[in-house]
Amino acid sequence: MTASKVASRPLSAIAQATRQAARQLAVLPTDARNQAIEAIAQALEAATPEILAANAADCKAAEAEGIPKPLYNRLKLDATKLKAAIDGVRDVGRLNDPVGKVEIHRELDEGLILKRISCPVGVLGIIFEARPDALIQITSLAIKSGNGVILKGGKEAIRSCETLVNAIHQGLSASAVDPAAVQLLTTREETVALLQLDEYIDLIIPRGSNSFVRFVQENTRIPVLGHADGICHVYIDQAADLQKAVDITIDAKTQYPAVCCAMETLLVHSSVAPRFMPLATAALEKRNVELRGDEPSRKIVDMSAATEADWSTEYSDLILSIKVVNSLEEAVNHINTYGSKHTDAIVTEDPTAAESFLAQVDSANVFHNCSTRFADGFRYGFGAEVGISTQKMPPRGPVGLEGLVTYKYQVTGNGHIVANYVGENAKPFTHRDL
Amino acid sequence: MTASKVASRPLSAIAQATRQAARQLAVLPTDARNQAIEAIAQALEAATPEILAANAADCKAAEAEGIPKPLYNRLKLDATKLKAAIDGVRDVGRLNDPVGKVEIHRELDEGLILKRISCPVGVLGIIFEARPDALIQITSLAIKSGNGVILKGGKEAIRSCETLVNAIHQGLSASAVDPAAVQLLTTREETVALLQLDEYIDLIIPRGSNSFVRFVQENTRIPVLGHADGICHVYIDQAADLQKAVDITIDAKTQYPAVCCAMETLLVHSSVAPRFMPLATAALEKRNVELRGDEPSRKIVDMSAATEADWSTEYSDLILSIKVVNSLEEAVNHINTYGSKHTDAIVTEDPTAAESFLAQVDSANVFHNCSTRFADGFRYGFGAEVGISTQKMPPRGPVGLEGLVTYKYQVTGNGHIVANYVGENAKPFTHRDL
Repeated sequence: MTASKVASRPLSAIAQATRQAARQLAVLPTDARNQAIEAIAQALEAATPEILAANAADCKAAEAEGIPKPLYNRLKLDATKLKAAIDGVRDVGRLNDPVGKVEIHRELDEGLILKRISCPVGVLGIIFEARPDALIQITSLAIKSGNGVILKGGKEAIRSCETLVNAIHQGLSASAVDPAAVQLLTTREETVALLQLDEYIDLIIPRGSNSFVRFVQENTRIPVLGHADGICHVYIDQAADLQKAVDITIDAKTQYPAVCCAMETLLVHSSVAPRFMPLATAALEKRNVELRGDEPSRKIVDMSAATEADWSTEYSDLILSIKVVNSLEEAVNHINTYGSKHTDAIVTEDPTAAESFLAQVDSANVFHNCSTRFADGFRYGFGAEVGISTQKMPPRGPVGLEGLVTYKYQVTGNGHIVANYVGENAKPFTHRDL
Repeated sequence: MTASKVASRPLSAIAQATRQAARQLAVLPTDARNQAIEAIAQALEAATPEILAANAADCKAAEAEGIPKPLYNRLKLDATKLKAAIDGVRDVGRLNDPVGKVEIHRELDEGLILKRISCPVGVLGIIFEARPDALIQITSLAIKSGNGVILKGGKEAIRSCETLVNAIHQGLSASAVDPAAVQLLTTREETVALLQLDEYIDLIIPRGSNSFVRFVQENTRIPVLGHADGICHVYIDQAADLQKAVDITIDAKTQYPAVCCAMETLLVHSSVAPRFMPLATAALEKRNVELRGDEPSRKIVDMSAATEADWSTEYSDLILSIKVVNSLEEAVNHINTYGSKHTDAIVTEDPTAAESFLAQVDSANVFHNCSTRFADGFRYGFGAEVGISTQKMPPRGPVGLEGLVTYKYQVTGNGHIVANYVGENAKPFTHRDL
């Protein structure tokens, strides 16, 4: 079955077929899923010429439409990048199996045993940018975690995505996994329709612009894993080491300004501002960072004025807003008010101040004396990152494979009935962990 | 501050005050939260005469309006029931602290340490029936887990709830917890408005009728913990022990038919149906259970005919639909199609059939040779139950205190910046669990 044939069927039929295939995939043993991942790697190797040709056609069309250079670079899939992506597939195969972990094992009473066991979520709907290598990674993570997946990539990558999914289907057809477990959508209309299919889709993972993620969050009843904004702060405490403060400021702002865990607002304690601010702003301006300060900041260093809107803006660019605060508490309040609950850091040599900041800042990632840029599943040692969640309920923060599994409770008895455990002569439960 | 004064303020001001109080509560040590719980228990003891008087007034008013007997029994709070509820508060105080658990402790590199620590969710919005004892339990669970809570009880219990919250406020005022952490709403309009306050409320827990829970789920962007339907099945496999099958059938249907984990549909393998069905239906009819069967069932035992609608109906009453299936697979498909992903059981002496059922049925609780009625947080040994979730993502199934906490990632460094970990001379991460 080719991807384009798939896309010509009605969406609910596609989703139903994915659900059916996912049910079989969910109960496959670890080995069978790992073999399917290896089969995908081999099929992608075998299809390399077709994949590169399809991508070249995508790139040519995108260039003709004047695609911006950074987007072009993400769309472009040369032999080196494809090989790296295939290596990534095999890396996923080597990760620990997230499925089938016994999280609770408890005797409730003699012969009545409770187990909580991790299991796949079911069917994932993943909407991603025009980045063919992302499709490869997402698919291998989905198979590893026992989930079916419905993919929708950015429209500029349509030829690449179709060719990749054809190869993946070819690989899977030689495995225990039904190729219908991986489906590709190709139109924007299908994406919108996908959000309504809460009967067939268990989790949506949107990647892309803040406004797109917010659109998804507001237009579906399906749980969404991800985040719209990344408004991250670094707070320079009165007890900060100034050299660390400058190093972390530069790294958090300039090391990769377009990424969600880059700093957008710098908060500086008033008692350290006169010494810190000139050092930091000089280093930032040397790196072409545009500065926007509140009034107290501008009394120390000349820069343009920040407006109220700046505190809630994710620049994703070489722009930084700066605010002087008079206390740790004011910094925490600013972050909890204007931040996006993503990643916020304190620079201080005072352990009490650090402890207080880490406890009170209400964000998924709270850092002490290190750059906000460390907020990342690979850097945390998760082996892979599905996305970063800024919701309060788990999974929160960088989410690895564990975000693609859930759990179920299994109880095995020998004819046990509740009537024996209630009323006057109620049997007690033993509740003994095994 | 009295509850009625609270309710006269605008809702967003109430919610903001709760958020503020919850932020302080969230960072209190275990002892301080446990002391606040003891202070609540003592204040409820001291206010016993007022509480009983208020409840008597509620009961009198409800009787005058002709409240059904089961609802009256839940509304009624006599001295014995109040004492039991206060004992329950102290039981919650003795539970393990769910806050501050170090779930991951990992060296990312020398001097760069990651911890994942459990922390309160923030502010809970809990909408419950006209059951004053529920208010007492919910409040103690909220304080134990470090969360603020906005309560809305059924309107018949309004005097009881106001008196209880007054007493709770009095108790908290002598503790480290700001009484504003616990708030009471009293009108239906406020409940609807509450669902819009995603800025201040982190989790909604609705209790009550299926249609009410569904209304909540469909009218808020705040995460909802709970479930609308409880359409639970028992499947009698061809290798079932018939005595166990009958016992479990009777218990699952009749031990407490109004509860969500009671059985609604009985599935029977065709090869065992001629022997099992007469035994089971005789026992069910002796307990006044109305039977509705499909055609094959009615060929074995005389009963009224089930319609398609019966398979998706939660009777919550002494009514049972019965269907004959020709295979385990057909049973699993029926459950995954018509069930509510709550609790489903297989009765069989065949371990392979049991394993296959437990793996393939896509429900929060999957049981082998025991009654569906065991799906309960207390019976699972969780010490308390906040609710049962039928969503796919965690928390799923019976949810104890752990459903009221989330986690955050804390990283502590010594001036660490990402620039040193990328590019040609990138430092490797050590990723060593501590």
